[in-house]
Amino acid sequence: MNYRLIVNLTGKMLRIEALFLLFPLVVALIYRGGDYAAFLWAILAVVLASLALSFIKPKDKKFRPKDAFAAAALIWLCLSLFGALPFYFSGCFKSIIDCIFESISGFTTTGASVLTEIESLPKGILFWRSFTHWIGGMGVLMLMLAVMPSMNASSVHLLRAESTGPSPEKIVPKIRETAKIMYLIYFAMTVALAVFLRVAGLPVYDSLISAFSTAGTGGFSSMNASIGAYHNVAAEIIITTFMFLFGISFTLYFLLLGRNFKAVLKDEELRLYFGIVIAAIVIITLNTSGLYGGFAQALRHSSFQVSSIISTTGFATTDFNLWPTLSQVILVFLMVTGCCAGSTGGGIKLVRILLLLKAGRIELDKILHPGSVKAVTVNKKTMNRDIVSKTALFFFVYFAIFFVSTTLVSIECKDITTSATAVIASLSNIGPGLGVVGPAGNFSSFTAFSKIVLSFCMIAGRLEFFPVLVLFAPSAWKKVRHKIKI
Amino acid sequence: MNYRLIVNLTGKMLRIEALFLLFPLVVALIYRGGDYAAFLWAILAVVLASLALSFIKPKDKKFRPKDAFAAAALIWLCLSLFGALPFYFSGCFKSIIDCIFESISGFTTTGASVLTEIESLPKGILFWRSFTHWIGGMGVLMLMLAVMPSMNASSVHLLRAESTGPSPEKIVPKIRETAKIMYLIYFAMTVALAVFLRVAGLPVYDSLISAFSTAGTGGFSSMNASIGAYHNVAAEIIITTFMFLFGISFTLYFLLLGRNFKAVLKDEELRLYFGIVIAAIVIITLNTSGLYGGFAQALRHSSFQVSSIISTTGFATTDFNLWPTLSQVILVFLMVTGCCAGSTGGGIKLVRILLLLKAGRIELDKILHPGSVKAVTVNKKTMNRDIVSKTALFFFVYFAIFFVSTTLVSIECKDITTSATAVIASLSNIGPGLGVVGPAGNFSSFTAFSKIVLSFCMIAGRLEFFPVLVLFAPSAWKKVRHKIKI
Repeated sequence: MNYRLIVNLTGKMLRIEALFLLFPLVVALIYRGGDYAAFLWAILAVVLASLALSFIKPKDKKFRPKDAFAAAALIWLCLSLFGALPFYFSGCFKSIIDCIFESISGFTTTGASVLTEIESLPKGILFWRSFTHWIGGMGVLMLMLAVMPSMNASSVHLLRAESTGPSPEKIVPKIRETAKIMYLIYFAMTVALAVFLRVAGLPVYDSLISAFSTAGTGGFSSMNASIGAYHNVAAEIIITTFMFLFGISFTLYFLLLGRNFKAVLKDEELRLYFGIVIAAIVIITLNTSGLYGGFAQALRHSSFQVSSIISTTGFATTDFNLWPTLSQVILVFLMVTGCCAGSTGGGIKLVRILLLLKAGRIELDKILHPGSVKAVTVNKKTMNRDIVSKTALFFFVYFAIFFVSTTLVSIECKDITTSATAVIASLSNIGPGLGVVGPAGNFSSFTAFSKIVLSFCMIAGRLEFFPVLVLFAPSAWKKVRHKIKI
Repeated sequence: MNYRLIVNLTGKMLRIEALFLLFPLVVALIYRGGDYAAFLWAILAVVLASLALSFIKPKDKKFRPKDAFAAAALIWLCLSLFGALPFYFSGCFKSIIDCIFESISGFTTTGASVLTEIESLPKGILFWRSFTHWIGGMGVLMLMLAVMPSMNASSVHLLRAESTGPSPEKIVPKIRETAKIMYLIYFAMTVALAVFLRVAGLPVYDSLISAFSTAGTGGFSSMNASIGAYHNVAAEIIITTFMFLFGISFTLYFLLLGRNFKAVLKDEELRLYFGIVIAAIVIITLNTSGLYGGFAQALRHSSFQVSSIISTTGFATTDFNLWPTLSQVILVFLMVTGCCAGSTGGGIKLVRILLLLKAGRIELDKILHPGSVKAVTVNKKTMNRDIVSKTALFFFVYFAIFFVSTTLVSIECKDITTSATAVIASLSNIGPGLGVVGPAGNFSSFTAFSKIVLSFCMIAGRLEFFPVLVLFAPSAWKKVRHKIKI
């Protein structure tokens, strides 16, 4: 592995993080919450670390897929660890583990919180919490590719390591252009959302916070009762819509910009996404109408919660812990599938489910018509057997990590529903689950050990497993160990 | 499809079922429980149906894989439906749906019961309940192949459709011989178990019942408190051992008979099975030792329950609903994996898990060493990519059916743990789950709709999905619909 280049890249990322930390610093200074010092210290630490790492110069520019995978995992880990510093210096958190958990939850756009009381926290800290969602949503590597001229052409591997879905694509031949366009769309949509929320009556600060958390499909709110606290139907409708929109592949928005409406309308993943969302809303509305004393209220809450869960945002306007079992099972199902590949959302991704359903159907066809040689196609593109096989394996790895993590989390003897959904909510980067970690609850009561396990799940889920597995694979570090021995 | 041949085969199977029904009839006559009439009526019905079907003669002997798959599913369905007749005629069950559920649960070796009070039932009925486990354990198609001279060579597809695992094999070139040897080993082990239990002090009747249920890894007992009712440590140890043994591939027993000890000891699936069982017993013993006031009692109960669940038998000596979460999560994990392919047990099968873990590792290796061209091997045999892909797809289909079924079962608003584990317990052919369907509970309180869904899961799980999917695939019946239209 090209360790020097990986470390050097990490240093470059820290430079960007230092810049990002200026925003909450400004917010802290405006609101005079006394948290500006926390940001100053954090910026100092990040800048020093960045300087130290910049002394490690790569000997060669060779950058293979495995380097990109390891770099992605390491960069995301460092981003989160350094991002936890403001939390630590602010003194608002109980322990260093809590700070790291909250930071990882932020950058991975999970939105699982260890805080029991949010509204009393300084505004700068709350701003940083939601801003990490925005940074993590589109991806920090994507940003580096967009803004740093020194990144070379082979860095397409980096983009692949961070972006989601079975076969990430460049939308334009030049990778830098792709990254720039993606970030521009992301930025424009976030601004639009913030403006809409302001017009709907939310304060400027809350509009910004909510826009960041929605855009990154994160879910951190500045209110204890999440979006439900505003009792603002217009804001709820706007956020419902935008959560849904941020769950769509950004490639489709690029196609929309190019007026290629036909391709967007015919996109099979988008159709499946629409179908599942509508079906889930209808069933849950009918199932909960008794609970909310009427169809209109049930529709309002079910559409918000469905959009929030399938896009893996995790905002809430009601406590779905109190819903009937059928509605809860549907939500858990949506937690596992997640939304579209290439969006800011998490989960297994619908295109993978689509692909596997089609592969299953073809397997059945092979038994019925032994002569047939159909291949799996998505959007009329043939998926070669390697992609199908990898996708099925991805599904297996998701559940393998789910089982191991649930076992580890269950050591502390919380109930089985809480343990299992806490892991799913972390792996799929959602935030709330059921039971203790329901929308009205939080992750504070977990032991430090469980918090570490769940943090691992969040990063593993965000990077879709393989980068993290590469980083921790013993054989990836043979050379390093060899060097240390000598 | 060769409909005539499929129907004709079903008729032949019914002839065998009529013969099997003579055993409980004899038991009913011996114990004079008044249930003999139920068996007489049932035998009459089965014989008449068999005669009616024998008039449908196949026009040609062409028997393709799809015919075998459809035949397997249809035969298992009819076997269960006609097997429910004694239950119905006995008047011991509340409804016809309950009778069918109990019968399907029996033949598929699930052991999930709708009965709330077992001990007061007539002896013939209880005998038939456990005997269906024994018939279903090794498979009724396997038996037809072993005893019916008219079955021709192409019937290897039938064996494939019924037997479990990713790549079922014939142990000797002739399929009839394979089937005969399998049944002989099965028969001998069952007899040995019954004798051991009698020596351990169980009554003759209870020894037989328990031997049938253990051999088929079913789990129906003649006692309300399952095996725990006997308070007989020797019997518990014997059953613990035999449940474990019946979870091993019968191919390995054939190798043992041929004194090929080396191949058995080196079998990777067997090693994994051993490893998981030992690890699970150790963890659960430590985790529950406080509950049972000591290490010895905890070891006794944990080893029985682990052996019962991983072999998908479902016997119980204690209520694991009261165990700590960690132990429960491990049990649920074992429910999903199940035991070895080619055994009488259910679940996904360990060889599939092994294969997928290896495939995942190779995928990782490909990133780390792009030049490497390693293939997945099990027992030094290379698994081609088609098998790996199919296995991964199998895993997906298991969870797809799990999610759909759990959604359907959750309509009746039982808690989420009960709904989910009831489906897993049915899909993996175990019997008890957690919550309402725990070892001290039963399936009686489910609605008729849920019972039908769970019955479908049991047959789908026993036949490993594809035969059932073929039977219900619309395109498989195009010709029939076409004919009906004309």
